[in-house]
Amino acid sequence: MSKIYVVGIGPGEYEQMTMRAANALSSCDTIVGYTVYVDLVKAHFADKEFLTTPMRKEVDRCVLAFEEAKKGKTVAMICSGDAGVYGMSGLMLEIGVDYPEVEVEVIPGVTAATGGAAVLGAPLIHDFALISLSDLLTPWEKIEKRLLLASEADFVICLYNPSSHKRKDYLQKACDLMLQHKAPETVCGLVQNIGREGETYRILTLQELRDTQVDMFTTVFVGNSMTKEINGKMVTPRGYRHGKEE
Amino acid sequence: MSKIYVVGIGPGEYEQMTMRAANALSSCDTIVGYTVYVDLVKAHFADKEFLTTPMRKEVDRCVLAFEEAKKGKTVAMICSGDAGVYGMSGLMLEIGVDYPEVEVEVIPGVTAATGGAAVLGAPLIHDFALISLSDLLTPWEKIEKRLLLASEADFVICLYNPSSHKRKDYLQKACDLMLQHKAPETVCGLVQNIGREGETYRILTLQELRDTQVDMFTTVFVGNSMTKEINGKMVTPRGYRHGKEE
Repeated sequence: MSKIYVVGIGPGEYEQMTMRAANALSSCDTIVGYTVYVDLVKAHFADKEFLTTPMRKEVDRCVLAFEEAKKGKTVAMICSGDAGVYGMSGLMLEIGVDYPEVEVEVIPGVTAATGGAAVLGAPLIHDFALISLSDLLTPWEKIEKRLLLASEADFVICLYNPSSHKRKDYLQKACDLMLQHKAPETVCGLVQNIGREGETYRILTLQELRDTQVDMFTTVFVGNSMTKEINGKMVTPRGYRHGKEE
Repeated sequence: MSKIYVVGIGPGEYEQMTMRAANALSSCDTIVGYTVYVDLVKAHFADKEFLTTPMRKEVDRCVLAFEEAKKGKTVAMICSGDAGVYGMSGLMLEIGVDYPEVEVEVIPGVTAATGGAAVLGAPLIHDFALISLSDLLTPWEKIEKRLLLASEADFVICLYNPSSHKRKDYLQKACDLMLQHKAPETVCGLVQNIGREGETYRILTLQELRDTQVDMFTTVFVGNSMTKEINGKMVTPRGYRHGKEE
């Protein structure tokens, strides 16, 4: 039986990958992915065949991977971060129905939420919600509802895809919704280029975040009512009963 | 300046760790952790000094790590999964205020949510909320509110700490709350012993989950309104506009 690994390569450079992911890439014949991610791993797996498709051609990329596997090759489909968080593993399993002779194994990786959290300090220590601001495949009303209810529930909120060329004011809109339930002084954080060259972060209040422009390489963190700034880091306590618990 | 790495070792065996995490463990003198996690890595770093403290002695464990670092040693504090998701990185940064001469670097890992998702298929492809059912440090009313609002918002919900000796009926209570907004036939998944010996999973409906007993080594996934079972795997589509998107 042919095999495809769907591999999360982590948020940035090679060493952010798990050993299991690196072993899977070593063991395969062909690595398939979006051009940018293929470039991140190419130097470490020089003996492999690489196949790339552009952004937004996800279905084509999946079919390409299955067609290679059908020829008898062991294939790795790579995704940045984790393949299962806004990644390709779902589409691969859906399209895999047409390729019963190919086995699909998903290999997890560090997603931008936990990768970015480590840069900021410890914002995700307690319950959190992950929301993408991209309305490409999700109606904006649904995103709006989630922002409101997650804020009302006092979740720490991590925002993926906070901006793009067409959606310059989405983060501002999102902040206005969160401000209906979260205080303006709520501690927030921004991380750019997680785990790769140019990695930077910034701690700011929700009110300040509202008036900040971010790019598409930024992950946004909005604290809960207990989140604090400690020595320039963003920290959410583990519990609500005590300050420091045992 | 002395250094402490706070390292997420991933959800199970050694190769679930990132290369960055393994490099940090290689470079340190002393590895500090809860006994069970230390046993998972001990064989791979035999030349290190190991210090352990029992469960629930988290503050002691942090102080131990800082006192070692103060002596000039490079220390790694290890956590299962990711150190920043219900892990030790927050407490380390809080206690670190008393040790300004020690630098703390957090190294992310694969958390049980994404590790378990990979075993089940692709349940977390779209927006999700992570909720711990442990009321040790969080009032149950707060947990209840989050379960209700996250269900109303149609998040995929991942539950940590779904059970313990003292909380045998908490998962049932949680399901009853989620059933106020989610359909009884909502696709759910259970994963036990993620990434280690004895790893198993099961797909079931929310109604069935309600009447299922799970142990403390189980992570629970509750789908959104679009989540499907495909060839025995749990899959959440990427979007709400189409079935298969491009």
